[in-house]
Amino acid sequence: MGNVPSAVKHCLSYQQLLREHLWIGDSVAGALDTAQETSQLSGLPEYVKIVEVGPRDGLQNEKVAAGATEISVFGAASESFSKRNINCSIEESMEKFEEVVKSARHMNIPARGYVSCALGCPYEGNITPQKVTEVSKKLYGMGCYEISLGDTTGVGTPGSMKRMLESVMKEIPSSALAVHCHDTYGQALANILTALQMGINVVDSAVSGLGGCPYAKGASGNVATEDLIYMLNGLGLNTGVNLYKVMEAGDFICKAVNKTTNSKVAQASFNARLE
Amino acid sequence: MGNVPSAVKHCLSYQQLLREHLWIGDSVAGALDTAQETSQLSGLPEYVKIVEVGPRDGLQNEKVAAGATEISVFGAASESFSKRNINCSIEESMEKFEEVVKSARHMNIPARGYVSCALGCPYEGNITPQKVTEVSKKLYGMGCYEISLGDTTGVGTPGSMKRMLESVMKEIPSSALAVHCHDTYGQALANILTALQMGINVVDSAVSGLGGCPYAKGASGNVATEDLIYMLNGLGLNTGVNLYKVMEAGDFICKAVNKTTNSKVAQASFNARLE
Repeated sequence: MGNVPSAVKHCLSYQQLLREHLWIGDSVAGALDTAQETSQLSGLPEYVKIVEVGPRDGLQNEKVAAGATEISVFGAASESFSKRNINCSIEESMEKFEEVVKSARHMNIPARGYVSCALGCPYEGNITPQKVTEVSKKLYGMGCYEISLGDTTGVGTPGSMKRMLESVMKEIPSSALAVHCHDTYGQALANILTALQMGINVVDSAVSGLGGCPYAKGASGNVATEDLIYMLNGLGLNTGVNLYKVMEAGDFICKAVNKTTNSKVAQASFNARLE
Repeated sequence: MGNVPSAVKHCLSYQQLLREHLWIGDSVAGALDTAQETSQLSGLPEYVKIVEVGPRDGLQNEKVAAGATEISVFGAASESFSKRNINCSIEESMEKFEEVVKSARHMNIPARGYVSCALGCPYEGNITPQKVTEVSKKLYGMGCYEISLGDTTGVGTPGSMKRMLESVMKEIPSSALAVHCHDTYGQALANILTALQMGINVVDSAVSGLGGCPYAKGASGNVATEDLIYMLNGLGLNTGVNLYKVMEAGDFICKAVNKTTNSKVAQASFNARLE
């Protein structure tokens, strides 16, 4: 488990905690009252699947192989980022991924493909939607059941999100796409809202906005699961996730790793308790 | 100037600084490259006016009368909040505002009306769109040229924003409406995006997310002007405001009042400079 704090090592229960606390399907019944509203924005999905990626971004360079029920491959739409993050070119990475995904499929293990730098690169700046589409298409073509499009440095806006998705969706059905937004520039929820309006219904997030990527300069962390669920609840979208329990899990994890939560919902609720 | 830090008192130039730094109409020419994109979301306005409200929320209880070229009246859609914030009922406040606005109009001074608690109240919880509409209509009817609809505690989501605006827009043209979003629950930009999509093109914000309201429990501050402009630039919407200069102003103000910026754009840019 590398340099993971002992408190977290201690809890093999971390994964278990997340499973128990995030996925028990209480629907939005326990959500904050003010956030219980009926969806009225057009084009939104009825159900949104939230993929908790805190452990991924926190442990993505660790080998977590034993008993895996799903694997992930981490591609990028930027050559420079690919070289720094996974130490090979995009083309080389695709060859390696193809073998891995093929083996996994033989064992009936589903593979998820990630495309980093989908809205910009810390080294190259702009990344074209065409490049993102090309890499996504390769990952989908080799058998990844879902492609998670990552705004690794959080530079995207609703404008670039829309342009990128319009391009990718010409090649891959929206049902096989997810978005993965970092909140570095505060744009994550607006970008996710845009993706939802375009028919995407799988969203990556991390409890308390933990995680990040050591190779993405200034990447301050994934969008906080708490803030995402708050928005989805407010839109009347079903997630099967109980916000209060996520907040409890976030509080537990932040104390364990001695970090301050990046969730504004958690901060606001904590401040409210103090008053 | 009450309990305003002396550094700010010292600069009567604060207002001047904002005027000089925020309104010199450099358009988006100096904006971050990655954020320069063409608007592609449907229904967005071409131009968005940003109203800097830092001083308002910071000094709203101060008497700033000398030489005023515009006045504001601060109504609320919640009885309890009205009583605590301005010490009278909604009905009483409307009577007083009517006199004030009438006098102002006689002197050709435009009056802006604010409606606090438009998406929820710290004391009463839910506020109906009907109540917000009723108060807005009164303010508009007495001669306020614009009604700023305030999510004072930041509890709103794109769902409640849409419902509230749909109701208010039945009575008041969108050209006479503005939104004023606090980012307490991290929803501000997503809420503003929703308002833009509905045709609103005046948005209140505060440099570095400063300000707030002492009577709104947990109100962590207005949406940061920097983060708002970043999103608008990314949508290709013209604001006439130069992001870099706003960031300079924000840096100056935060140092002067010894506060950490609440702008994620400013934080990310600062972190990038350190690396």
